[in-house]
Amino acid sequence: MSDIKDLERRVLAFRDERAWAQFHTPKDLAMSLSIEAAELLELFLWKKPEEPVDHERIREELADVLFSALLLASHYQIDVHKAVVDKLAKTAEKYPVDKSYGSNKKYTEHT
Amino acid sequence: MSDIKDLERRVLAFRDERAWAQFHTPKDLAMSLSIEAAELLELFLWKKPEEPVDHERIREELADVLFSALLLASHYQIDVHKAVVDKLAKTAEKYPVDKSYGSNKKYTEHT
Amino acid sequence: MSDIKDLERRVLAFRDERAWAQFHTPKDLAMSLSIEAAELLELFLWKKPEEPVDHERIREELADVLFSALLLASHYQIDVHKAVVDKLAKTAEKYPVDKSYGSNKKYTEHT
Amino acid sequence: MSDIKDLERRVLAFRDERAWAQFHTPKDLAMSLSIEAAELLELFLWKKPEEPVDHERIREELADVLFSALLLASHYQIDVHKAVVDKLAKTAEKYPVDKSYGSNKKYTEHT
Repeated sequence: MSDIKDLERRVLAFRDERAWAQFHTPKDLAMSLSIEAAELLELFLWKKPEEPVDHERIREELADVLFSALLLASHYQIDVHKAVVDKLAKTAEKYPVDKSYGSNKKYTEHT
Repeated sequence: MSDIKDLERRVLAFRDERAWAQFHTPKDLAMSLSIEAAELLELFLWKKPEEPVDHERIREELADVLFSALLLASHYQIDVHKAVVDKLAKTAEKYPVDKSYGSNKKYTEHT
Repeated sequence: MSDIKDLERRVLAFRDERAWAQFHTPKDLAMSLSIEAAELLELFLWKKPEEPVDHERIREELADVLFSALLLASHYQIDVHKAVVDKLAKTAEKYPVDKSYGSNKKYTEHT
Repeated sequence: MSDIKDLERRVLAFRDERAWAQFHTPKDLAMSLSIEAAELLELFLWKKPEEPVDHERIREELADVLFSALLLASHYQIDVHKAVVDKLAKTAEKYPVDKSYGSNKKYTEHT
Protein backbone atom coordinates (compact mmCIF):
# COMPACT_ATOMS: atom_id res chain seq x y z
CA MET A 1 0.00 0.00 0.00
CA SER A 2 1.01 3.60 -0.56
CA ASP A 3 2.84 4.90 2.49
CA ILE A 4 1.19 8.30 2.10
CA LYS A 5 -2.24 6.65 2.28
CA ASP A 6 -1.03 4.72 5.32
CA LEU A 7 -0.06 7.98 7.06
CA GLU A 8 -3.37 9.55 6.12
CA ARG A 9 -5.21 6.65 7.69
CA ARG A 10 -3.17 6.99 10.86
CA VAL A 11 -3.71 10.73 11.30
CA LEU A 12 -7.44 10.33 10.64
CA ALA A 13 -7.63 7.55 13.25
CA PHE A 14 -5.72 9.74 15.72
CA ARG A 15 -8.15 12.60 15.10
CA ASP A 16 -11.26 10.40 15.32
CA GLU A 17 -10.26 8.70 18.58
CA ARG A 18 -10.30 12.20 20.09
CA ALA A 19 -13.41 13.48 18.27
CA TRP A 20 -11.42 16.39 16.91
CA ALA A 21 -12.99 16.59 13.44
CA GLN A 22 -15.44 19.16 14.83
CA PHE A 23 -12.54 21.64 15.30
CA HIS A 24 -10.71 20.79 12.09
CA THR A 25 -12.24 23.19 9.63
CA PRO A 26 -9.98 23.58 6.59
CA LYS A 27 -9.31 27.16 7.71
CA ASP A 28 -8.09 25.96 11.10
CA LEU A 29 -6.03 23.19 9.52
CA ALA A 30 -4.32 25.75 7.29
CA MET A 31 -3.65 27.89 10.38
CA SER A 32 -2.25 24.87 12.16
CA LEU A 33 0.07 24.16 9.24
CA SER A 34 1.43 27.72 9.37
CA ILE A 35 1.88 27.53 13.14
CA GLU A 36 3.74 24.23 12.98
CA ALA A 37 5.92 25.54 10.14
CA ALA A 38 6.85 28.50 12.35
CA GLU A 39 7.80 26.16 15.20
CA LEU A 40 10.13 24.37 12.81
CA LEU A 41 11.53 27.70 11.64
CA GLU A 42 12.22 28.75 15.22
CA LEU A 43 14.84 25.99 15.51
CA PHE A 44 17.00 27.98 13.07
CA LEU A 45 16.41 31.43 14.55
CA TRP A 46 19.47 33.54 15.42
CA LYS A 47 21.76 30.75 14.20
CA LYS A 48 24.54 30.83 11.66
CA PRO A 49 24.36 28.15 8.97
CA GLU A 50 27.26 26.25 10.54
CA GLU A 51 25.74 26.15 14.03
CA PRO A 52 24.35 22.80 15.09
CA VAL A 53 20.61 22.29 15.29
CA ASP A 54 18.71 19.65 17.20
CA HIS A 55 17.91 16.98 14.58
CA GLU A 56 15.38 15.21 16.76
CA ARG A 57 13.36 18.39 17.21
CA ILE A 58 13.47 19.08 13.47
CA ARG A 59 12.17 15.59 12.88
CA GLU A 60 9.32 16.17 15.32
CA GLU A 61 8.31 19.59 14.04
CA LEU A 62 8.41 18.32 10.46
CA ALA A 63 6.09 15.50 11.52
CA ASP A 64 3.69 18.09 13.01
CA VAL A 65 3.70 19.99 9.72
CA LEU A 66 2.87 16.78 7.87
CA PHE A 67 0.13 15.94 10.35
CA SER A 68 -1.74 19.14 9.41
CA ALA A 69 -0.90 18.79 5.72
CA LEU A 70 -2.28 15.25 5.58
CA LEU A 71 -5.51 16.20 7.35
CA LEU A 72 -5.98 19.03 4.91
CA ALA A 73 -5.25 16.76 1.94
CA SER A 74 -7.73 14.26 3.29
CA HIS A 75 -10.41 16.93 3.79
CA TYR A 76 -10.22 17.90 0.12
CA GLN A 77 -9.57 14.35 -1.06
CA ILE A 78 -6.34 15.47 -2.61
CA ASP A 79 -4.08 12.71 -3.93
CA VAL A 80 -0.83 13.98 -2.43
CA HIS A 81 1.49 12.09 -4.76
CA LYS A 82 -0.33 13.31 -7.85
CA ALA A 83 -0.58 16.86 -6.48
CA VAL A 84 3.20 17.12 -6.05
CA VAL A 85 3.93 15.53 -9.44
CA ASP A 86 1.49 17.90 -11.17
CA LYS A 87 2.87 20.95 -9.35
CA LEU A 88 6.44 20.08 -10.28
CA ALA A 89 5.38 20.05 -13.93
CA LYS A 90 3.72 23.44 -13.55
CA THR A 91 6.66 24.94 -11.65
CA ALA A 92 9.01 23.62 -14.32
CA GLU A 93 7.21 25.89 -16.79
CA LYS A 94 7.69 28.92 -14.54
CA TYR A 95 11.30 27.94 -13.87
CA PRO A 96 12.66 26.51 -17.13
CA VAL A 97 16.16 25.10 -16.66
CA ASP A 98 17.81 27.60 -19.00
CA LYS A 99 16.43 30.62 -17.13
CA SER A 100 16.73 29.29 -13.59
CA TYR A 101 19.97 27.28 -13.62
CA GLY A 102 22.12 28.41 -10.70
CA SER A 103 19.81 31.38 -10.08
CA ASN A 104 17.99 32.28 -6.84
CA LYS A 105 15.70 34.77 -8.58
CA LYS A 106 11.94 34.51 -8.43
CA TYR A 107 10.36 33.80 -11.81
CA THR A 108 8.83 37.28 -11.76
CA GLU A 109 12.38 38.68 -11.87
CA HIS A 110 13.55 36.59 -14.84
CA THR A 111 14.65 38.70 -17.77
CA MET B 1 8.40 1.46 -3.95
CA SER B 2 7.38 3.88 -1.27
CA ASP B 3 5.52 6.81 -2.80
CA ILE B 4 7.14 9.21 -0.34
CA LYS B 5 10.58 8.09 -1.51
CA ASP B 6 9.38 8.51 -5.08
CA LEU B 7 8.36 12.12 -4.37
CA GLU B 8 11.66 12.80 -2.63
CA ARG B 9 13.52 11.55 -5.67
CA ARG B 10 11.46 13.80 -7.92
CA VAL B 11 11.96 16.98 -5.89
CA LEU B 12 15.70 16.30 -5.62
CA ALA B 13 15.92 15.80 -9.39
CA PHE B 14 13.97 19.04 -9.93
CA ARG B 15 16.38 20.89 -7.64
CA ASP B 16 19.50 19.37 -9.19
CA GLU B 17 18.49 20.09 -12.79
CA ARG B 18 18.50 23.77 -11.72
CA ALA B 19 21.62 23.63 -9.50
CA TRP B 20 19.57 25.00 -6.60
CA ALA B 21 21.16 22.97 -3.78
CA GLN B 22 23.58 25.87 -3.22
CA PHE B 23 20.66 28.07 -2.03
CA HIS B 24 18.85 25.34 -0.11
CA THR B 25 20.37 25.65 3.33
CA PRO B 26 18.11 23.99 5.91
CA LYS B 27 17.39 27.46 7.32
CA ASP B 28 16.18 28.67 3.93
CA LEU B 29 14.16 25.50 3.38
CA ALA B 30 12.44 26.06 6.73
CA MET B 31 11.73 29.66 5.68
CA SER B 32 10.34 28.44 2.39
CA LEU B 33 8.06 26.01 4.19
CA SER B 34 6.65 28.84 6.34
CA ILE B 35 6.18 31.07 3.32
CA GLU B 36 4.35 28.39 1.33
CA ALA B 37 2.18 27.58 4.36
CA ALA B 38 1.21 31.27 4.52
CA GLU B 39 0.26 31.26 0.83
CA LEU B 40 -2.02 28.34 1.53
CA LEU B 41 -3.46 30.15 4.54
CA GLU B 42 -4.18 33.23 2.44
CA LEU B 43 -6.75 31.25 0.44
CA PHE B 44 -8.94 31.22 3.58
CA LEU B 45 -8.39 34.83 4.63
CA TRP B 46 -11.49 36.99 5.31
CA LYS B 47 -13.73 34.02 4.45
CA LYS B 48 -16.51 32.45 6.46
CA PRO B 49 -16.29 28.67 6.81
CA GLU B 50 -19.17 28.19 4.40
CA GLU B 51 -17.67 30.33 1.63
CA PRO B 52 -16.24 28.41 -1.31
CA VAL B 53 -12.50 28.17 -1.76
CA ASP B 54 -10.59 27.36 -4.90
CA HIS B 55 -9.74 23.64 -4.56
CA GLU B 56 -7.20 23.69 -7.35
CA ARG B 57 -5.23 26.46 -5.66
CA ILE B 58 -5.31 24.62 -2.34
CA ARG B 59 -3.97 21.55 -4.09
CA GLU B 60 -1.14 23.59 -5.61
CA GLU B 61 -0.17 25.43 -2.43
CA LEU B 62 -0.24 22.19 -0.47
CA ALA B 63 2.11 20.69 -3.06
CA ASP B 64 4.47 23.66 -2.59
CA VAL B 65 4.46 23.05 1.17
CA LEU B 66 5.33 19.41 0.58
CA PHE B 67 8.09 20.35 -1.87
CA SER B 68 9.92 22.26 0.89
CA ALA B 69 9.10 19.64 3.52
CA LEU B 70 10.52 16.83 1.39
CA LEU B 71 13.73 18.73 0.64
CA LEU B 72 14.19 19.36 4.33
CA ALA B 73 13.49 15.71 5.19
CA SER B 74 15.99 14.67 2.56
CA HIS B 75 18.63 17.07 3.87
CA TYR B 76 18.44 15.50 7.33
CA GLN B 77 17.84 11.99 5.98
CA ILE B 78 14.58 11.85 7.89
CA ASP B 79 12.38 8.86 7.15
CA VAL B 80 9.11 10.75 6.77
CA HIS B 81 6.82 7.80 7.38
CA LYS B 82 8.62 6.79 10.55
CA ALA B 83 8.84 10.42 11.75
CA VAL B 84 5.07 10.84 11.56
CA VAL B 85 4.35 7.45 13.16
CA ASP B 86 6.77 8.23 16.02
CA LYS B 87 5.36 11.72 16.54
CA LEU B 88 1.79 10.41 16.68
CA ALA B 89 2.87 8.08 19.50
CA LYS B 90 4.47 10.97 21.36
CA THR B 91 1.52 13.29 20.82
CA ALA B 92 -0.81 10.55 22.03
CA GLU B 93 0.95 10.77 25.40
CA LYS B 94 0.44 14.53 25.58
CA TYR B 95 -3.16 14.16 24.42
CA PRO B 96 -4.50 10.97 26.01
CA VAL B 97 -7.98 10.13 24.74
CA ASP B 98 -9.65 10.56 28.14
CA LYS B 99 -8.31 14.10 28.61
CA SER B 100 -8.60 15.31 25.04
CA TYR B 101 -11.81 13.70 23.77
CA GLY B 102 -13.99 16.40 22.22
CA SER B 103 -11.73 19.11 23.64
CA ASN B 104 -9.95 21.88 21.72
CA LYS B 105 -7.68 22.73 24.67
CA LYS B 106 -3.91 22.68 24.39
CA TYR B 107 -2.31 20.00 26.57
CA THR B 108 -0.82 22.74 28.75
CA GLU B 109 -4.39 23.71 29.70
CA HIS B 110 -5.52 20.20 30.65
CA THR B 111 -6.68 19.97 34.25
CA MET C 1 8.40 63.04 21.26
CA SER C 2 7.01 60.50 18.86
CA ASP C 3 5.93 57.41 20.77
CA ILE C 4 7.11 55.17 17.94
CA LYS C 5 10.59 56.65 18.26
CA ASP C 6 10.37 56.14 22.00
CA LEU C 7 9.57 52.44 21.51
CA GLU C 8 12.40 52.09 19.02
CA ARG C 9 14.82 53.53 21.52
CA ARG C 10 13.62 51.11 24.17
CA VAL C 11 13.90 47.98 22.03
CA LEU C 12 17.37 49.03 20.86
CA ALA C 13 18.47 49.59 24.46
CA PHE C 14 17.06 46.18 25.42
CA ARG C 15 19.00 44.55 22.58
CA ASP C 16 22.23 46.39 23.33
CA GLU C 17 22.23 45.61 27.06
CA ARG C 18 22.33 41.95 25.98
CA ALA C 19 24.76 42.36 23.05
CA TRP C 20 22.24 40.77 20.73
CA ALA C 21 22.86 42.91 17.64
CA GLN C 22 25.34 40.27 16.45
CA PHE C 23 22.44 37.77 15.99
CA HIS C 24 19.95 40.28 14.61
CA THR C 25 20.59 40.07 10.89
CA PRO C 26 17.60 41.45 8.99
CA LYS C 27 16.92 37.92 7.75
CA ASP C 28 16.72 36.64 11.32
CA LEU C 29 14.58 39.60 12.40
CA ALA C 30 12.15 38.83 9.58
CA MET C 31 12.08 35.18 10.71
CA SER C 32 11.45 36.31 14.26
CA LEU C 33 8.54 38.47 13.11
CA SER C 34 6.94 35.49 11.34
CA ILE C 35 7.46 33.25 14.36
CA GLU C 36 5.93 35.76 16.77
CA ALA C 37 3.00 36.31 14.39
CA ALA C 38 2.40 32.54 14.43
CA GLU C 39 2.40 32.51 18.24
CA LEU C 40 -0.28 35.17 18.17
CA LEU C 41 -2.23 33.19 15.59
CA GLU C 42 -2.08 30.08 17.75
CA LEU C 43 -4.28 31.81 20.35
CA PHE C 44 -7.16 31.59 17.86
CA LEU C 45 -6.53 28.04 16.67
CA TRP C 46 -9.46 25.57 16.74
CA LYS C 47 -11.70 28.31 18.16
CA LYS C 48 -15.02 29.57 16.93
CA PRO C 49 -15.32 33.35 16.56
CA GLU C 50 -17.53 33.58 19.63
CA GLU C 51 -15.17 31.62 21.90
CA PRO C 52 -13.27 33.70 24.45
CA VAL C 53 -9.57 34.33 23.95
CA ASP C 54 -7.02 35.37 26.53
CA HIS C 55 -6.66 39.15 26.03
CA GLU C 56 -3.53 39.39 28.11
CA ARG C 57 -1.75 36.81 25.95
CA ILE C 58 -2.86 38.59 22.79
CA ARG C 59 -1.43 41.81 24.19
CA GLU C 60 1.87 40.08 24.92
CA GLU C 61 2.22 38.30 21.58
CA LEU C 62 1.32 41.50 19.75
CA ALA C 63 4.09 43.25 21.69
CA ASP C 64 6.54 40.54 20.59
CA VAL C 65 5.54 41.09 16.98
CA LEU C 66 6.16 44.81 17.38
CA PHE C 67 9.51 44.18 19.06
CA SER C 68 10.79 42.43 15.90
CA ALA C 69 9.08 44.92 13.60
CA LEU C 70 10.68 47.89 15.34
CA LEU C 71 14.15 46.33 15.25
CA LEU C 72 13.75 45.70 11.55
CA ALA C 73 12.51 49.24 10.94
CA SER C 74 15.46 50.57 12.88
CA HIS C 75 17.93 48.43 10.91
CA TYR C 76 16.72 49.93 7.64
CA GLN C 77 16.12 53.38 9.13
CA ILE C 78 12.51 53.17 8.10
CA ASP C 79 10.27 55.95 9.40
CA VAL C 80 7.40 53.74 10.54
CA HIS C 81 4.74 56.44 10.57
CA LYS C 82 5.59 57.57 7.07
CA ALA C 83 5.88 53.99 5.80
CA VAL C 84 2.31 53.18 6.92
CA VAL C 85 0.90 56.45 5.59
CA ASP C 86 2.59 55.89 2.21
CA LYS C 87 1.45 52.28 2.02
CA LEU C 88 -2.15 53.22 2.77
CA ALA C 89 -2.04 55.61 -0.18
CA LYS C 90 -0.66 52.88 -2.43
CA THR C 91 -3.15 50.27 -1.20
CA ALA C 92 -5.96 52.75 -1.76
CA GLU C 93 -5.09 52.69 -5.47
CA LYS C 94 -5.25 48.88 -5.56
CA TYR C 95 -8.46 48.91 -3.55
CA PRO C 96 -10.47 51.94 -4.71
CA VAL C 97 -13.59 52.42 -2.62
CA ASP C 98 -16.00 51.79 -5.49
CA LYS C 99 -14.48 48.40 -6.32
CA SER C 100 -13.75 47.21 -2.80
CA TYR C 101 -16.69 48.49 -0.75
CA GLY C 102 -18.12 45.61 1.26
CA SER C 103 -16.04 43.11 -0.72
CA ASN C 104 -13.54 40.56 0.65
CA LYS C 105 -12.02 39.92 -2.77
CA LYS C 106 -8.33 40.35 -3.45
CA TYR C 107 -7.59 43.15 -5.91
CA THR C 108 -6.43 40.56 -8.45
CA GLU C 109 -10.00 39.21 -8.49
CA HIS C 110 -11.68 42.59 -9.08
CA THR C 111 -13.69 42.69 -12.26
CA MET D 1 -0.79 63.59 19.56
CA SER D 2 0.69 60.11 19.77
CA ASP D 3 1.82 58.97 16.34
CA ILE D 4 0.67 55.43 17.09
CA LYS D 5 -2.84 56.73 17.77
CA ASP D 6 -2.63 58.73 14.56
CA LEU D 7 -1.80 55.56 12.59
CA GLU D 8 -4.60 53.67 14.28
CA ARG D 9 -7.03 56.36 13.27
CA ARG D 10 -5.83 56.18 9.68
CA VAL D 11 -6.09 52.40 9.35
CA LEU D 12 -9.55 52.43 10.91
CA ALA D 13 -10.66 55.15 8.49
CA PHE D 14 -9.22 53.14 5.58
CA ARG D 15 -11.13 50.07 6.75
CA ASP D 16 -14.39 51.93 7.33
CA GLU D 17 -14.41 53.69 3.96
CA ARG D 18 -14.47 50.18 2.47
CA ALA D 19 -16.90 48.62 4.99
CA TRP D 20 -14.34 45.93 5.76
CA ALA D 21 -14.96 45.62 9.50
CA GLN D 22 -17.42 42.80 8.74
CA PHE D 23 -14.50 40.60 7.52
CA HIS D 24 -12.02 41.68 10.17
CA THR D 25 -12.65 39.16 12.93
CA PRO D 26 -9.67 39.06 15.30
CA LYS D 27 -8.94 35.54 14.02
CA ASP D 28 -8.73 36.82 10.43
CA LEU D 29 -6.62 39.81 11.49
CA ALA D 30 -4.18 37.45 13.19
CA MET D 31 -4.09 35.35 9.99
CA SER D 32 -3.48 38.47 7.97
CA LEU D 33 -0.59 39.45 10.24
CA SER D 34 1.05 36.04 9.72
CA ILE D 35 0.53 36.21 5.96
CA GLU D 36 2.03 39.71 5.69
CA ALA D 37 4.96 38.65 7.90
CA ALA D 38 5.61 35.77 5.48
CA GLU D 39 5.59 38.16 2.52
CA LEU D 40 8.24 40.20 4.27
CA LEU D 41 10.21 37.04 5.01
CA GLU D 42 10.10 36.02 1.36
CA LEU D 43 12.26 39.02 0.46
CA PHE D 44 15.16 37.30 2.26
CA LEU D 45 14.57 33.79 0.93
CA TRP D 46 17.52 31.97 -0.70
CA LYS D 47 19.74 35.01 -0.05
CA LYS D 48 23.05 35.23 1.71
CA PRO D 49 23.27 37.92 4.42
CA GLU D 50 25.48 40.07 2.20
CA GLU D 51 23.14 39.98 -0.80
CA PRO D 52 21.21 43.17 -1.45
CA VAL D 53 17.51 43.30 -0.70
CA ASP D 54 14.96 45.71 -2.05
CA HIS D 55 14.56 48.32 0.72
CA GLU D 56 11.41 49.79 -0.74
CA ARG D 57 9.67 46.42 -0.71
CA ILE D 58 10.77 45.80 2.86
CA ARG D 59 9.32 49.13 3.82
CA GLU D 60 6.02 48.25 2.14
CA GLU D 61 5.72 44.76 3.59
CA LEU D 62 6.56 46.07 7.04
CA ALA D 63 3.79 48.63 6.64
CA ASP D 64 1.36 45.81 5.76
CA VAL D 65 2.38 43.96 8.92
CA LEU D 66 1.71 47.08 10.96
CA PHE D 67 -1.64 47.62 9.25
CA SER D 68 -2.88 44.26 10.58
CA ALA D 69 -1.19 44.74 13.95
CA LEU D 70 -2.84 48.12 14.48
CA LEU D 71 -6.29 46.83 13.55
CA LEU D 72 -5.86 43.99 16.02
CA ALA D 73 -4.65 46.36 18.73
CA SER D 74 -7.63 48.59 18.06
CA HIS D 75 -10.06 45.66 18.22
CA TYR D 76 -8.87 44.75 21.71
CA GLN D 77 -8.32 48.37 22.74
CA ILE D 78 -4.69 47.59 23.42
CA ASP D 79 -2.48 50.58 24.17
CA VAL D 80 0.41 49.64 21.88
CA HIS D 81 3.04 51.77 23.60
CA LYS D 82 2.19 50.41 27.02
CA ALA D 83 1.95 46.83 25.74
CA VAL D 84 5.51 46.96 24.37
CA VAL D 85 6.90 48.66 27.48
CA ASP D 86 5.22 46.06 29.73
CA LYS D 87 6.40 43.15 27.59
CA LEU D 88 9.99 44.39 27.62
CA ALA D 89 9.85 44.37 31.43
CA LYS D 90 8.51 40.82 31.41
CA THR D 91 11.01 39.59 28.83
CA ALA D 92 13.82 41.18 30.85
CA GLU D 93 12.92 38.76 33.65
CA LYS D 94 13.12 35.76 31.32
CA TYR D 95 16.34 37.09 29.80
CA PRO D 96 18.32 38.71 32.62
CA VAL D 97 21.44 40.44 31.32
CA ASP D 98 23.86 38.16 33.15
CA LYS D 99 22.38 34.99 31.62
CA SER D 100 21.64 36.30 28.16
CA TYR D 101 24.56 38.62 27.40
CA GLY D 102 26.03 37.69 24.03
CA SER D 103 23.96 34.48 23.96
CA ASN D 104 21.51 33.36 21.26
CA LYS D 105 19.98 30.66 23.47
CA LYS D 106 16.28 30.54 24.27
CA TYR D 107 15.51 31.13 27.95
CA THR D 108 14.37 27.52 28.23
CA GLU D 109 17.97 26.49 27.44
CA HIS D 110 19.61 28.71 30.05
CA THR D 111 21.62 26.76 32.59
